[in-house]
Amino acid sequence: MLRVGIVGASGYTGSELMRLLLTHPEQVELTCVTSRTFAGQGVDRVLPNLRGLLDLEFENPDMEEVAGKTDIVFLGLPHKSSMAFAPKLLELGVKIIDFSADYRLRNADVYEKWYQKHTSPHLLEGAVYGLPELHRPEIRGASLVANPGCYPTGAILALLPALKAGIVELDVIIVDSKSGISGAGRTAKEVTHFPNRSENSTAYSIGSHRHAPEIEQELSRAMEKDVNVCFVPHLLPMTRGILTTAYLKLSKAISAVELLGIYSQHYEGEPFVRVLDEGEIPQTQAVRGSNYCDIGVEIVEESRIAVVISAIDNLTKGASGQALQNMNIVAGFDETAGLLYPGLMP
Amino acid sequence: MLRVGIVGASGYTGSELMRLLLTHPEQVELTCVTSRTFAGQGVDRVLPNLRGLLDLEFENPDMEEVAGKTDIVFLGLPHKSSMAFAPKLLELGVKIIDFSADYRLRNADVYEKWYQKHTSPHLLEGAVYGLPELHRPEIRGASLVANPGCYPTGAILALLPALKAGIVELDVIIVDSKSGISGAGRTAKEVTHFPNRSENSTAYSIGSHRHAPEIEQELSRAMEKDVNVCFVPHLLPMTRGILTTAYLKLSKAISAVELLGIYSQHYEGEPFVRVLDEGEIPQTQAVRGSNYCDIGVEIVEESRIAVVISAIDNLTKGASGQALQNMNIVAGFDETAGLLYPGLMP
Amino acid sequence: MLRVGIVGASGYTGSELMRLLLTHPEQVELTCVTSRTFAGQGVDRVLPNLRGLLDLEFENPDMEEVAGKTDIVFLGLPHKSSMAFAPKLLELGVKIIDFSADYRLRNADVYEKWYQKHTSPHLLEGAVYGLPELHRPEIRGASLVANPGCYPTGAILALLPALKAGIVELDVIIVDSKSGISGAGRTAKEVTHFPNRSENSTAYSIGSHRHAPEIEQELSRAMEKDVNVCFVPHLLPMTRGILTTAYLKLSKAISAVELLGIYSQHYEGEPFVRVLDEGEIPQTQAVRGSNYCDIGVEIVEESRIAVVISAIDNLTKGASGQALQNMNIVAGFDETAGLLYPGLMP
Amino acid sequence: MLRVGIVGASGYTGSELMRLLLTHPEQVELTCVTSRTFAGQGVDRVLPNLRGLLDLEFENPDMEEVAGKTDIVFLGLPHKSSMAFAPKLLELGVKIIDFSADYRLRNADVYEKWYQKHTSPHLLEGAVYGLPELHRPEIRGASLVANPGCYPTGAILALLPALKAGIVELDVIIVDSKSGISGAGRTAKEVTHFPNRSENSTAYSIGSHRHAPEIEQELSRAMEKDVNVCFVPHLLPMTRGILTTAYLKLSKAISAVELLGIYSQHYEGEPFVRVLDEGEIPQTQAVRGSNYCDIGVEIVEESRIAVVISAIDNLTKGASGQALQNMNIVAGFDETAGLLYPGLMP
Repeated sequence: MLRVGIVGASGYTGSELMRLLLTHPEQVELTCVTSRTFAGQGVDRVLPNLRGLLDLEFENPDMEEVAGKTDIVFLGLPHKSSMAFAPKLLELGVKIIDFSADYRLRNADVYEKWYQKHTSPHLLEGAVYGLPELHRPEIRGASLVANPGCYPTGAILALLPALKAGIVELDVIIVDSKSGISGAGRTAKEVTHFPNRSENSTAYSIGSHRHAPEIEQELSRAMEKDVNVCFVPHLLPMTRGILTTAYLKLSKAISAVELLGIYSQHYEGEPFVRVLDEGEIPQTQAVRGSNYCDIGVEIVEESRIAVVISAIDNLTKGASGQALQNMNIVAGFDETAGLLYPGLMP
Repeated sequence: MLRVGIVGASGYTGSELMRLLLTHPEQVELTCVTSRTFAGQGVDRVLPNLRGLLDLEFENPDMEEVAGKTDIVFLGLPHKSSMAFAPKLLELGVKIIDFSADYRLRNADVYEKWYQKHTSPHLLEGAVYGLPELHRPEIRGASLVANPGCYPTGAILALLPALKAGIVELDVIIVDSKSGISGAGRTAKEVTHFPNRSENSTAYSIGSHRHAPEIEQELSRAMEKDVNVCFVPHLLPMTRGILTTAYLKLSKAISAVELLGIYSQHYEGEPFVRVLDEGEIPQTQAVRGSNYCDIGVEIVEESRIAVVISAIDNLTKGASGQALQNMNIVAGFDETAGLLYPGLMP
Repeated sequence: MLRVGIVGASGYTGSELMRLLLTHPEQVELTCVTSRTFAGQGVDRVLPNLRGLLDLEFENPDMEEVAGKTDIVFLGLPHKSSMAFAPKLLELGVKIIDFSADYRLRNADVYEKWYQKHTSPHLLEGAVYGLPELHRPEIRGASLVANPGCYPTGAILALLPALKAGIVELDVIIVDSKSGISGAGRTAKEVTHFPNRSENSTAYSIGSHRHAPEIEQELSRAMEKDVNVCFVPHLLPMTRGILTTAYLKLSKAISAVELLGIYSQHYEGEPFVRVLDEGEIPQTQAVRGSNYCDIGVEIVEESRIAVVISAIDNLTKGASGQALQNMNIVAGFDETAGLLYPGLMP
Repeated sequence: MLRVGIVGASGYTGSELMRLLLTHPEQVELTCVTSRTFAGQGVDRVLPNLRGLLDLEFENPDMEEVAGKTDIVFLGLPHKSSMAFAPKLLELGVKIIDFSADYRLRNADVYEKWYQKHTSPHLLEGAVYGLPELHRPEIRGASLVANPGCYPTGAILALLPALKAGIVELDVIIVDSKSGISGAGRTAKEVTHFPNRSENSTAYSIGSHRHAPEIEQELSRAMEKDVNVCFVPHLLPMTRGILTTAYLKLSKAISAVELLGIYSQHYEGEPFVRVLDEGEIPQTQAVRGSNYCDIGVEIVEESRIAVVISAIDNLTKGASGQALQNMNIVAGFDETAGLLYPGLMP
């Protein structure tokens, strides 16, 4: 029996993880969930969709107590907060899957530039970037998995096969991402105010979003050279889903069918990446609530540009589903356990 | 192994049922799905959320062939079409769970008034109205289960305990229901056109909706006297969910807590009806994609009116989840098999 | 030239009013808008839809200054805040149209029960409830107009003709209102968080909403007897619009056509109430951004219940449009000046 | 008095145009609106937002009759249908503003490639592409104005200043456009079915949308050389609005402020293009229902890419507002007459 805990469980990543853990078929027990805000309250009173399905109370986050009850802990904390908990938990022998950005960037200087000074830089080297399609072997033995950001998951999966195939010019990599509002988290803010978002669309953080260095790090490592990405996120009037439209300048002429072949081959055997047929275009609804990443490709010949589109649910493959996938790998379970659910459509 | 078929599988009830059957834990095999429109096409090409999860093609609906491959068949056909298939299938020894209204109304004259002349009225007596909370024992032995309408499911579950408790005046029963657009089915029509529904709300079929006689029939049977209901459905700018606000004139003073007690006791042991705590009000999102019906109650003292609110997902508890619940009962499975999933929230 | 000011101008009522004032055809000049939050900033930088259309800065609210520049002031302040400004402004000779509830309830005890102790109860008697369809003559000479709440506007206009006609039983008056989210104001809160509202519907404040006493006060005054209303507001996943479905128990048999006749006659000559034809049902989109209130009626014969439905835009006829209508009346302008715009549809 | 007609008036372009004409301050009279579907019905019964504001019936489209009553006619017809009406009307001395694509492409072969064989190619040379910011002088004297497509309006206005300034490489021009659903027209189709679009986002017609040749034609004419554009349209879950994100590879280093300067200067004096301040990003809601095009720019330095974003309402500046702007120019009215309305926000 794998004893599982979630620190910072009342946010979207935590609640989505609980939703998924409830139907996990392997020997998994959710033993401990913490939330400062809701300590002492029943989980299924705070999260009404879980009512009757989970008999557990939120606790205050005491690391000794948490470590005593768990083998693996998910950290559903804000950026900058995770690094206050992770070192202690690791010391107490608990494995960690961290939802925050605190251990995603391997270079402490880069982290400091985008976030703040890192307080446990010695852990960065051992941390594994938890994108199974890229780092499955390292995840297997990891004690600290840095679960990828939602945008990077959609972007890296869309970009990598074309880059690895050596068919694109690396100086024009454009990632136009469109996200649902749940990506902004559970806390109400002006930007998530319903009247501000309904019947509205806009871009934000153009070229300056914190997920850009994460995308660039992983592409650069994979390509073994510096890769820059022009990343522009947008907000759409919907709750879940990220549609990523990537534009790649081709270095040689190639047909859509050939490009599709590159993607199909690259992702052969991957349980959660579905490369669509020729002419099919991903849509976020098809993966809503599921751990799949759907990918479609097209070539705009006159411009010699490959258009690669990926669709994920930002809370599932973009967060909690992927975290569970990582847990399965770490624990030696079937990687797909508890994750083979279709999207909720319509 | 229970061999299951779906006739008319490409509509919303069929596709939602496939979504649920995919993760059914009992010995169930989906052997046959028919669709005139999509015959010959792979199910997971027509329904992209199922991609990679189901290896089956839509067939043309040939009843002999269907009967040869199945023990139980769901009819996901339009009203008036089911009765063209049901008699033959029953004759061939297959059990039926029918999504249409064709066998819900026990009186052929009432059916004729609201739909058209019934072509197999002899089957009406043996058909069972498939609301497990009301007719579980009869469903167990049924060959033909008439799966309830979405509105009636939400309305009957909200009304019944108060009526049975004898605390309301039967001449003022008002049901104000608010539905998501998927209730109108998969086919695009003017009323489902996105620009007509987004940022819009309206009522329709005031006092003349076909679900009214269905609600009245079941309440009248339960009360053993004629019960009239003032039923007004509304369309909301959302895809799934029915929120039903029922107004009942109290025949005697009663507190909200007492009323809650009546509801809690009535639904004790029911796996899919969740009576909320005092002061809690159901919301459709909490049951989205799930088979739960959440119920909350309140008393408006000055008016001596009980307000009872229920929330269901019209495609799940209001259609396919309930149909699966009926299948579980008919097949002797655990009634909750494949249905204990929380709602997708947010 | 009528010099107009808005105190608390950055909220939804203030910004909607500015939108409308921009195209007002009469001699009206917006001379002063205050906002503590945005003092010193250009209005068209804070409200990007107004960009290039209005050359004015938000000021801090200094009543002497405001009074010096204006003949009439709209108070777009929260409940309980208006009464801190109104007495002084009135003293300084400025007329007031108040968006808050502070002067709507004529009885200071009722106000205290629902809000807090009133600090200027002596002004209540002279304040006029600004529903022109009900109090046009008094509005004409008023110094202090209490602009009605959004729900009461839709509810009173729907209920009044039937009540005045003496055809309904006064002990069963049910008002089921469905509102867009902008009714909750400009400030982001948990209840207005996009992921909490999109694809969701719920009721709130059942029988305990502050607009209930307002509805009851006006109906009671009109009927010259105590009238109780069972009022249940709901939140819909849309930004603007209130659809009110009123249920009235008929005291005598009457046809829908007769009832329609009562409504048409009652509202004959009213510029902003549109009684729809037989069989037509109001929808919120048809009045979006406009000052119209659309009304439709139907009879559910078996239940002897009249269903009356009204649709308004909560920010326009439910707030700023009506306030401008009141200003027109107070100022002696054509009552419809600047308000004869059709709804934005789709 | 300018007598105005609309042929094909019941579609979105026609109804939006009527909404705007209702408050046009100049001497304009709408004398004739045609619709085969609704002939004989009152306009304000078919379009409930216009109720009480317009006393006119839809007629069958008889060109002689139309010409007898009008000085200028808007053709709100589908592509390929306009060219069946335009020649006759021109012959009868009526001026035309055509919403369809039939006279937008100057080359009949290009038209044939994307649509079908052109039946009045002799009119192409005299037709003027009705983007006032580009062709104002020619519009003034035109008899036949081809009103631009919605996507091209947003794209050309976003691209032109940078291209004309000679700061971009012409081989990488990427236009990622996001549109509301009303762009698909009034007729319900599978792609506009609410459950298919709500909580969903996708791309379509990648590199093959009919608006691409239109964008390329106008840019090529302006640049006097062939310009290719990689154009990818997307559908967002909203009704109105197009957000266009254009990516341009810079041929020389330039700051965001400098780029902003280029745009501000280019559009100086333009009444309907609003270049935002540094750091401001357009949003579709700010222009909803208005004739404005908001533009913001940013530079992603590492990639040397300029990101230019424009926001329009596809039905207003993207169709009927622009058509009215063209009418004003043709008729010699103030170009802004009836168009200086702010967006409906929220």
